[in-house]
Amino acid sequence: MSTAAPILLTPGPLTTSARTRQALLVDWGSWDEGFNRLTASLCEQLLAIVNGADTHHCVPLQGSGTFAVEAAIGTLVPRDGKVLVLINGAYGKRLAKICEVLGRPFSTFETAEDEPTTAADVDCLLRADSAITHVALIHCETSTGILNPLADIADVVRRHGKRLIVDAMSSFGALPVDAQQVPFDALIAASGKCLEGVPGMGFVFARKESLAAAAGNSHSLAMDLADQHAYRMKTGQWRFTPPTHVVAALHEALLQYNEEGGLPARHARYAANCRALLDGMAALGLRSFLPAAIQAPVIATFHAPKDPRYQFKAFYERVKAKGFILYPGKLTQVETFRVGCIGHVDPAQMREAVAAVGEALREMEVFDT
Amino acid sequence: MSTAAPILLTPGPLTTSARTRQALLVDWGSWDEGFNRLTASLCEQLLAIVNGADTHHCVPLQGSGTFAVEAAIGTLVPRDGKVLVLINGAYGKRLAKICEVLGRPFSTFETAEDEPTTAADVDCLLRADSAITHVALIHCETSTGILNPLADIADVVRRHGKRLIVDAMSSFGALPVDAQQVPFDALIAASGKCLEGVPGMGFVFARKESLAAAAGNSHSLAMDLADQHAYRMKTGQWRFTPPTHVVAALHEALLQYNEEGGLPARHARYAANCRALLDGMAALGLRSFLPAAIQAPVIATFHAPKDPRYQFKAFYERVKAKGFILYPGKLTQVETFRVGCIGHVDPAQMREAVAAVGEALREMEVFDT
Ligand SMILES: Cc1ncc(COP(=O)(O)O)c(C=O)c1O
Ligand SMILES: Cc1ncc(COP(=O)(O)O)c(C=O)c1O
Repeated sequence: MSTAAPILLTPGPLTTSARTRQALLVDWGSWDEGFNRLTASLCEQLLAIVNGADTHHCVPLQGSGTFAVEAAIGTLVPRDGKVLVLINGAYGKRLAKICEVLGRPFSTFETAEDEPTTAADVDCLLRADSAITHVALIHCETSTGILNPLADIADVVRRHGKRLIVDAMSSFGALPVDAQQVPFDALIAASGKCLEGVPGMGFVFARKESLAAAAGNSHSLAMDLADQHAYRMKTGQWRFTPPTHVVAALHEALLQYNEEGGLPARHARYAANCRALLDGMAALGLRSFLPAAIQAPVIATFHAPKDPRYQFKAFYERVKAKGFILYPGKLTQVETFRVGCIGHVDPAQMREAVAAVGEALREMEVFDT
Repeated sequence: MSTAAPILLTPGPLTTSARTRQALLVDWGSWDEGFNRLTASLCEQLLAIVNGADTHHCVPLQGSGTFAVEAAIGTLVPRDGKVLVLINGAYGKRLAKICEVLGRPFSTFETAEDEPTTAADVDCLLRADSAITHVALIHCETSTGILNPLADIADVVRRHGKRLIVDAMSSFGALPVDAQQVPFDALIAASGKCLEGVPGMGFVFARKESLAAAAGNSHSLAMDLADQHAYRMKTGQWRFTPPTHVVAALHEALLQYNEEGGLPARHARYAANCRALLDGMAALGLRSFLPAAIQAPVIATFHAPKDPRYQFKAFYERVKAKGFILYPGKLTQVETFRVGCIGHVDPAQMREAVAAVGEALREMEVFDT
C-alpha cells in the first residue's frame, strides 16, 4: 500500500511534475505586466508547437476543454454555416451536441468506436452535401484512445474548399500536427492534458483570417474568441479574470516540455509508456479494445475480465490503494476500463501500474486473466 | 524595496494564505470519490454562508466569474423573459451586454457611478413595464466599490412577483445575504474574491424550482447550469473536467473562513482594512471617490492627484517595488485609482500600503497630496 499521493493514469487531470506544481504557489496580479508577459510567452510557445505563428492566433480561454471547443464552434462557424461532425465516440457526440445547442446546422457521420473515419468517407460526404461549410472531428477520441487520420482528412477538406475544426484535446503536444501541412481553421486543446499542466483553461489555434471575420458570430459573451483575442491584442490582458495559478503552471510545464525535447521527446515517452502498458496487460491476459494500428499513445481501453468476481469499483479501489488511479470505461456496448499513458510518468511506472493491476485481480480471485 | 512577492490589493485575484496555496499541490483525480466529496463539501459550505440549503442549489462552474453570470442569465431567464438591468458601473453594463449577446429582451436603468439604485426606482420601473420578468443587479459594483441596497430592492422585486438575479461577485462572503430574507432566483460569485481562494471557478446559488424549470433555456452546452447540476446529482462529479487544484484551494480557503469566524469575522477584518485605508489615504490628502455611507469594504476608489507629475503607471511601479500591487481606475470621466481591501491581509498591512503610497508620491514629487 502506497502512502504517497496516487499516480493519476487518467487522461487529464493527470500527474504533474513537482516543479509545475511549485509554480502554483505565486499569487499573480492579473493586471500586472509580469503576468501579461507570462500569457504572451505561453501563447508563443503553444503556437510554436503547431508551427502556426504565421497563420494562426492562439486564443486562451478560461474553463475546461469543452468550453474551448464550444467557443471555437460558436465563434468560427457563421450562424448560417453547416458543420459535418465525424463521430466515433463520446467526444464526437459532444461536438454534435454543441452544434445542436448553439443552433448551428449540422449533420453527423458515425462509425463504430473501433473504426476511424476515413478520408474517403469525408470525400463522399462533402460531394453529397454542398451546404457543408465546416468539418469537425476528434483527433484522438479519448473515449477509446482511437486515432483518426487527421492529415488525410484535412487534405480532403482542403480540396473541397471547406474548413476544418479539430478537437485535439488529448493529442496536442504529443502527436505531431503542423499547421502548414494540415490546414485547419481551429485546433483546440487544454492545459491539463499532454502538456502536463493543471486543468482550468483551454486554448484555440484559430486561423487569422477566420478569426478576423468572426466578429458577431458568437452566441456567448464569455466564449467569444474574436472578442477575447482583440482584447488581449489591445491590452496584453485576458478579457475576464484569468485562472492565474493555472496559467503560471502551464507556463512552467511548457518550459519543461521544451527542455525534455519538445514534441518528439514527449511523443517518444508516451509511446514507450503505452507499449509498456499494452505489453504488460497482454501478459496478464487483459485484452486491449483497439488494434495496435489505430491506438494512440494517449489512453488505452481494456476489456474487463469476464469473471463474475470482477467489479470495476472494487478493482479501482484496490489499484488505487497500490498507488495508481485508473479510469472507467466509456463504452456502452462492452464492459471496459481505461488506463492513461500521459502525464509526468515513465515506462517504469507504467510497469508498476501493471503489476498493481495484476495483484489487484489476484486478490479479487479474478482468474480468467 | 521588498523582496517578497508583492501583496495584491486588487479585488481578485488577491493575496491568498500559504495554507490555501499549499492545497494546490495535490493532483486530484476528477473521477475519484475523494474529489467528489471535496466538491460536495464545498457546495454545502457555500450554501451555509447564504443560508440557502433549503431553497437553493449551489452550482459550481468552470471559468471566471463572468462565465457564471452569463450561465445564470442564460439558464434561468426563459428565452421570452425580459430582464431589467440596474447599472451604475462597468459590471452592470456587462450584465446588459450579456443579455444583448444572448438575445434575451432587456431594458436598462442607469444611475451615476456614485449613486446607488434605489428600491423606489425599481418600484417605478416595474410598475411601468409589466413585461419584465427578472431584475438583475450588482451588489457591490467593483468598478467603484459602491454598495447597492440589495435587501430593499429584493423586497420590491418580490412584492411585484418578479425574480431577482444578483451579481455578488465581490461581496459574497464578506457582506451578509440571507436567502430566506432576501429572496433571489440566482446569486453569483467566484472562488478568487472574498472567500480568498484562487481564481478559476464561479458558482451560482439557484432557486431549486427555478433551476428545475430551466431545462432547455440555455444558449450554451458548457454554461447550462440545469445540466451541470443534474449531472452532479446523478454522478457526484462535475460534468466536464473541473479545475481540480482551484477547487481544492477553495475548499481549504473555506475551512479557514469558518475557523476565522465565518462571515462576521471576514466582514469585520475587511471593514477594518477599509477604515485603515481610507483614514490613511485621507491623511495623505488623497480624496476617496465615494461618500462613506455607500462605500463597501471591498475596494476603494481614489481621485488621482492633480499634480502633472503624477502618472498612474510610474506610481504603480513605485508602489509595487515597495511590495503592494494597486489597481487602475475604471471610471471614464475622472482619473482615479483603486485599492482593494480584500484578501489575506490585515489593517497593519493596509497601513504599510498607505505608507508605500505616501513614499511613492513624495519620490515622484507629487506635492498637492
Ligand atoms: C478529445 C476530448 N475532447 C474534449 C474533452 C473535454 O474536455 P473537458 O473535460 O476539459 O471539458 C476531452 C476531455 O478529456 C477530450 O479528451
Ligand atoms: C461585481 C463583479 N461582477 C463580475 C465580475 C467578473 O468576474 P471575472 O473577472 O472573474 O469574470 C467581477 C470581477 O471582478 C466583479 O467584481
